[in-house]
Amino acid sequence: MGEETHRADRAFHGETEIIETVFAPLAAETHGAFGLVDDAALFTPCPGEEVVLTTDMIVAGVHFLEDAQAGDVVYKALAVNVSDLVAKGADPDVYLLSIALAGTPDRAWLEALQSGLAAAQGDFGCVLAGGDTVHTPGPLCLSVTALGRLPEGEMVHRFGARPGDAVYVTGTVGDGAAGLKLMRQGSDILGPGDTAFLTGRYRRPKPEPALAAPLRAHASAAMDISDGLAGDFAKLCAASGCGGRIEAESVPLSPPATALLEAEFISREELLCGGDDYCVLAAVPPEQGPSFEQAVSGAGGQATRVGQMEEGREALVLGKDGRPMRMSRPGYDHFRDDPAG
Amino acid sequence: MGEETHRADRAFHGETEIIETVFAPLAAETHGAFGLVDDAALFTPCPGEEVVLTTDMIVAGVHFLEDAQAGDVVYKALAVNVSDLVAKGADPDVYLLSIALAGTPDRAWLEALQSGLAAAQGDFGCVLAGGDTVHTPGPLCLSVTALGRLPEGEMVHRFGARPGDAVYVTGTVGDGAAGLKLMRQGSDILGPGDTAFLTGRYRRPKPEPALAAPLRAHASAAMDISDGLAGDFAKLCAASGCGGRIEAESVPLSPPATALLEAEFISREELLCGGDDYCVLAAVPPEQGPSFEQAVSGAGGQATRVGQMEEGREALVLGKDGRPMRMSRPGYDHFRDDPAG
Repeated sequence: MGEETHRADRAFHGETEIIETVFAPLAAETHGAFGLVDDAALFTPCPGEEVVLTTDMIVAGVHFLEDAQAGDVVYKALAVNVSDLVAKGADPDVYLLSIALAGTPDRAWLEALQSGLAAAQGDFGCVLAGGDTVHTPGPLCLSVTALGRLPEGEMVHRFGARPGDAVYVTGTVGDGAAGLKLMRQGSDILGPGDTAFLTGRYRRPKPEPALAAPLRAHASAAMDISDGLAGDFAKLCAASGCGGRIEAESVPLSPPATALLEAEFISREELLCGGDDYCVLAAVPPEQGPSFEQAVSGAGGQATRVGQMEEGREALVLGKDGRPMRMSRPGYDHFRDDPAG
Repeated sequence: MGEETHRADRAFHGETEIIETVFAPLAAETHGAFGLVDDAALFTPCPGEEVVLTTDMIVAGVHFLEDAQAGDVVYKALAVNVSDLVAKGADPDVYLLSIALAGTPDRAWLEALQSGLAAAQGDFGCVLAGGDTVHTPGPLCLSVTALGRLPEGEMVHRFGARPGDAVYVTGTVGDGAAGLKLMRQGSDILGPGDTAFLTGRYRRPKPEPALAAPLRAHASAAMDISDGLAGDFAKLCAASGCGGRIEAESVPLSPPATALLEAEFISREELLCGGDDYCVLAAVPPEQGPSFEQAVSGAGGQATRVGQMEEGREALVLGKDGRPMRMSRPGYDHFRDDPAG
């Protein structure tokens, strides 16, 4: 793209080697990637299928700690996109990765990058189809676009929940927030195994692709929990044009998160508002609740009923006393948070 | 994505307004964009279609001049992706735009951004389906992923050319390189109209979506010319496993570029190697040449035969004397250039 490119990219060693040795092996089995030697990738839909598209851009120092490991960063970059696909009822298929590298990466850093992507591909069943590798004078910046498949007409939207629908979460909530707090502040409350579990949930969140099918079969609305359960629930209510309530005590916590809560290392509010969960928040018509729970369980997951949708506009999180919990910040809302608020 | 996000993004004013006022209007007519209020977009293929995917990341100061206008930057970001789709024989359809904003953009900057995207959408028939808006402490960074459609099995690859195929370029070559040189050095050789034409070709390149159909009907191989004709021709030859030659004098130049060449403001080598052309380089079986030329002409374009594919491995650009031109740099090759070379 012009001489600006030429001049600046000349300082950027080894792009050939990066594509051939780091990325091409990750695309070796991808139908339509052509070994990353063509100018574009080919995606072949099956008859009766639609394609769900999602994209996230992440920047060093903004979306992850500056000293984060390369493998964790790329793992998470793919995970957050897979999380969106799954919550929409789509089976993850391929992804494109664009990466702006700050300076000249060394071999160990690139190997960690490749290894993190390979682990994520294995966990999520989503393979590299293409991308772009450029240089930046600024911080490392990654953009992942992921494509998933679903049968025509079965996408699960953020809107669509009705009053009376049961509200579910999959997995356990707050592990990522607890992991981040442990990384920042340290603590000897937990043993090394439990500590590693929680920090691992922050570093390498685990969306569950097997949940896509139960969601599209049963959910009236769903979204992934990325910015905190309380805030994301408010968004789902608003998009669906109704209200709802969640009982805070019924929200499933992992045993290590429970231990930190009981030791008062972290508050319930922090667990429900911290974000980085990448589990699914779903509204399910009440008569379908049992089938949904069974289908999720059959897919190796866990769906817990935590509340229900209601008339009105209020999205409430109720504490043990049945009163709305007072939250200083219900979760970061990219669409509504006012920095002055 | 965790408290790092919360903390850093809190300094970033008005994300809601940016999405609602800048991006949502660009997605108003997009099937499957849901007004940008859901977590993902839906792409619905027609029966018998395949989807071509391409992505490019561009960084301020690397891929465009730091003082470039916002409207030009986003126009070009979409144009370079459309250019890849067209060269593969795909009809551009939708795109996703992720943007990392440096600091807090003012209203005029955002209006220029929107206006540039609206112009590109109009020119290329490709509409916004989704994206991501984040903050960066570094330079402005954009990532566009574009999707195009084509009938199953008709993708045109970089490989596939055979000895004896005619080599064509569409449009005129070197206008972008001439425009950039004019922007940098200035010159009174041309009048303001011709100067604006060339700088406009650099700032807002014009890939031609109508050429996708003639290419898939007739080309054995094709790629867009982004890094200079000479270098890109070498890549097409290498991917196809054969050699070829281009006669430099037969490469079509626009009248303003010709005037600059005659005035010795720019050399033929610079025009053939400068890049930023975003026209198409295609190999066409000789018996299909006339139909290809006619089809391109019928689509409002111009296809010029500039050489042919040959046995062997050499990709030559021949000067007026019939000898290979000596080129100090045949075009920046992201895949092979060695900074020490």
